[in-house]
Amino acid sequence: MQAVDLNSDLGESFGAWVMGDDAAMLDLVSSANVACGFHAGDPAGMLKTLQAARARGVSVGAHVGYRDLAGFGRRAMDPSSEELYGDVIYQIGALQGLAAAVGTRVSYVKPHGALYNTIAFDARQAADVIAAILAVDPRLPLVALAGSPLVAQAEKAGLTVIAEAFADRAYTADGRLVSRREPGAVLHDPVLVAGRMVRLVRDGVVEAIDGQMARVEAQSICVHGDSPDAVAMARQVRRALEAEGIAIRSFAGPETAGQG
Amino acid sequence: MQAVDLNSDLGESFGAWVMGDDAAMLDLVSSANVACGFHAGDPAGMLKTLQAARARGVSVGAHVGYRDLAGFGRRAMDPSSEELYGDVIYQIGALQGLAAAVGTRVSYVKPHGALYNTIAFDARQAADVIAAILAVDPRLPLVALAGSPLVAQAEKAGLTVIAEAFADRAYTADGRLVSRREPGAVLHDPVLVAGRMVRLVRDGVVEAIDGQMARVEAQSICVHGDSPDAVAMARQVRRALEAEGIAIRSFAGPETAGQG
Amino acid sequence: MQAVDLNSDLGESFGAWVMGDDAAMLDLVSSANVACGFHAGDPAGMLKTLQAARARGVSVGAHVGYRDLAGFGRRAMDPSSEELYGDVIYQIGALQGLAAAVGTRVSYVKPHGALYNTIAFDARQAADVIAAILAVDPRLPLVALAGSPLVAQAEKAGLTVIAEAFADRAYTADGRLVSRREPGAVLHDPVLVAGRMVRLVRDGVVEAIDGQMARVEAQSICVHGDSPDAVAMARQVRRALEAEGIAIRSFAGPETAGQG
Amino acid sequence: MQAVDLNSDLGESFGAWVMGDDAAMLDLVSSANVACGFHAGDPAGMLKTLQAARARGVSVGAHVGYRDLAGFGRRAMDPSSEELYGDVIYQIGALQGLAAAVGTRVSYVKPHGALYNTIAFDARQAADVIAAILAVDPRLPLVALAGSPLVAQAEKAGLTVIAEAFADRAYTADGRLVSRREPGAVLHDPVLVAGRMVRLVRDGVVEAIDGQMARVEAQSICVHGDSPDAVAMARQVRRALEAEGIAIRSFAGPETAGQG
Repeated sequence: MQAVDLNSDLGESFGAWVMGDDAAMLDLVSSANVACGFHAGDPAGMLKTLQAARARGVSVGAHVGYRDLAGFGRRAMDPSSEELYGDVIYQIGALQGLAAAVGTRVSYVKPHGALYNTIAFDARQAADVIAAILAVDPRLPLVALAGSPLVAQAEKAGLTVIAEAFADRAYTADGRLVSRREPGAVLHDPVLVAGRMVRLVRDGVVEAIDGQMARVEAQSICVHGDSPDAVAMARQVRRALEAEGIAIRSFAGPETAGQG
Repeated sequence: MQAVDLNSDLGESFGAWVMGDDAAMLDLVSSANVACGFHAGDPAGMLKTLQAARARGVSVGAHVGYRDLAGFGRRAMDPSSEELYGDVIYQIGALQGLAAAVGTRVSYVKPHGALYNTIAFDARQAADVIAAILAVDPRLPLVALAGSPLVAQAEKAGLTVIAEAFADRAYTADGRLVSRREPGAVLHDPVLVAGRMVRLVRDGVVEAIDGQMARVEAQSICVHGDSPDAVAMARQVRRALEAEGIAIRSFAGPETAGQG
Repeated sequence: MQAVDLNSDLGESFGAWVMGDDAAMLDLVSSANVACGFHAGDPAGMLKTLQAARARGVSVGAHVGYRDLAGFGRRAMDPSSEELYGDVIYQIGALQGLAAAVGTRVSYVKPHGALYNTIAFDARQAADVIAAILAVDPRLPLVALAGSPLVAQAEKAGLTVIAEAFADRAYTADGRLVSRREPGAVLHDPVLVAGRMVRLVRDGVVEAIDGQMARVEAQSICVHGDSPDAVAMARQVRRALEAEGIAIRSFAGPETAGQG
Repeated sequence: MQAVDLNSDLGESFGAWVMGDDAAMLDLVSSANVACGFHAGDPAGMLKTLQAARARGVSVGAHVGYRDLAGFGRRAMDPSSEELYGDVIYQIGALQGLAAAVGTRVSYVKPHGALYNTIAFDARQAADVIAAILAVDPRLPLVALAGSPLVAQAEKAGLTVIAEAFADRAYTADGRLVSRREPGAVLHDPVLVAGRMVRLVRDGVVEAIDGQMARVEAQSICVHGDSPDAVAMARQVRRALEAEGIAIRSFAGPETAGQG
């Protein structure tokens, strides 16, 4: 039976500010990328998300980001290697502490926002993030943009890499994401998106923006949950995959006896 | 052979701002209370302090504080129990991650500044901190103000408590610290201070501000290192103790084959 | 013709996090308490709220708070007088700069959350806030809790004080707010609340929680807008007041030719 | 009589962390670039620096930076135009408020660190900063890197531009700064540096790193004060200029009857 991981960014509230519908998404995904406090996430809120993930048997990843609450970690930055290395370890450790407190654990690392985009192509910052994961626990897989140079760099360094596709994004013929600045970069039709993801999992291809078929090898699919429409799309993707006999399953294995 | 622990607050720089002389103090103390990022401490700087502590065999404690960089954690705050519980776990976890990355570990918890002072007497916030330590690792000792209600509260909850005296502070006849707002609350003569600490360790007493002898049972002595004078006083305390045959030794045991 | 001011807390989003429905509330109130960045409010978002306030002729107040984003300024703190004095001036100045950039101005100061509650009764922190306002512009009125010691303290110091009532809160027989920890402290029925506010404006009384009539002299009424229900209640209050011939008008006078 | 402005970065302490020797530098410079809270500077500390500047008749500039305390504003960032525009206005306004409170005023704007370096060559971020200054007060001069594209861009937009040279930096033959990554980029000999600055003011030239003479037109010279050596160099520069009959005088004119 075929399987794929569905992941989503969660735990992104901060204090009095709420972001997304974590409870709804945790019913749909197999992996929860939990914010670690630098771009979003306060400890009390992170604990709630971790407890809810544990209750549903959803795997937890450290969603590490730049130290930039005001910019939600979406702004490019150039921390030194010392800074980035330390910041990533700090965030993973903090989430590990919170996860242990609720009886679960951190099963992977997925960088967030501008850090995610930067290390996909910037070998220096990528090396800093890789070194940080190796220092904390070399068994932690890294979720990385499918088709990016980061995949080979991290594998060469000894990490397990989980290549990731984005459900709601258009691709170029050579398997890259169409830049958000281009028209048509973001897809909005849940049925279309769901059908594309079925094909991605079954055949390893997705129809590119120019009509060609692009090869995209991905073990995980990222779905968003920051709006009611996004949750609806995620639900449609899950249903379509399951209807085709594709299991939704974390690459990290189940954490508890729950669903996942 | 008698022994006592000497501890000091370290890792309190933040980014471009330097605080204290960590290298000098790590040659004098057996336990390093390392800031965890909420009142001070950036990850890259914390890593340096942790590496230096490891190189000298100095034990590392999580110096957790209120989330208040601008006030250096010295301002009273009233976080909710959920917030304080989460904040303490987060900080311990973050330091554990960094410590693991340099091959050492967190051996105890010592709250900082206003949090330290508050939980000495405020049972609600004390309970939150105790619950956080229990959730992370119930074997982590808590360093607490000697003679305060916190000692019994934490022991009753199952924690190992290390009672702490302050080298440069005056005491009342019933073994409490003289408030900093009172004249004579802080002592400045290194020789006098060193002699008081020898007596504290040998006889469990310290001369109170009114001339009576006060009982103070402490397994650790806090020395400061935030100025050249403070470092000189710490050095004098260590020398006087060693001259009397009292070993300076962490309550947590040596971390490595180093001195400590 | 009788008149009263309606004020609401606005501009409380922060970066990617949205709080409240500023546009809806700006159609209902005559005064907008705009967050100044310490408990909430990022400059780009504050600018949007200021522009929207200006477009509707709504007066703008500096909603100054403790430096506590994670706690939304709702946690008691004890900054030194130097710190609090500086923090209040800084926040007012920052909002003045943004207000000038969009062609409006800051017309009053209303402390937020824990700072508001603290200075209502704590003369030391109250003195620091008063001194800060005097240093920036002694003509800026201070919005203060009706019936609190702050009213007299600020007036004695030379400030104009606008006493404020809370639409959705229960009062004691001596005109104080029932603590939020007591049952019945917060009212939820829009029609009941609106009727109470009409009586407050017309007769200077409100029915206390024990059934007696309490005297409450207020020139401004605070309505909330942080949920759809809160916006609906604010709308009901405005309608009821206008139906009774009571004008909704800022104590600071109109800023532009707009409504307000 | 010839004159030139000497400026330095001040007010860069933050809470318990001290940076630089503001008092010493205020005796040497005619313009104080005061940190505005985003890369450094807490309000209470900023007030002290402002008071000291006023007492000596030193002009005050808003040293606006990226929102990055952990990186001291030295890390490149890419805020959106809305964000950067708002952040710059906010910081200028905040400093204006504090300056007014101590009886002085903000006389110019000098971006800090990575923002300074970025806008020297990045027209988009430069436009955002220029727009912010125009929105607050179009009479505020902008201090910009001599020879950079920013000079013409800001002048074209209607701002007064003060071109700035750096006392301790090497120049290329075409009048640009040698990158800090190159050997010899930073000069350490106070006598040599002082002699170069005399020539810069008198003849508008500086000997480039390759021995040629480079034209550098600057109305202000930046000297550093973040170490005892830096203060000594600044003192030497001032003495050498005065010995040659060159007055040290703010381009903004004296603020009070003091020296400056």
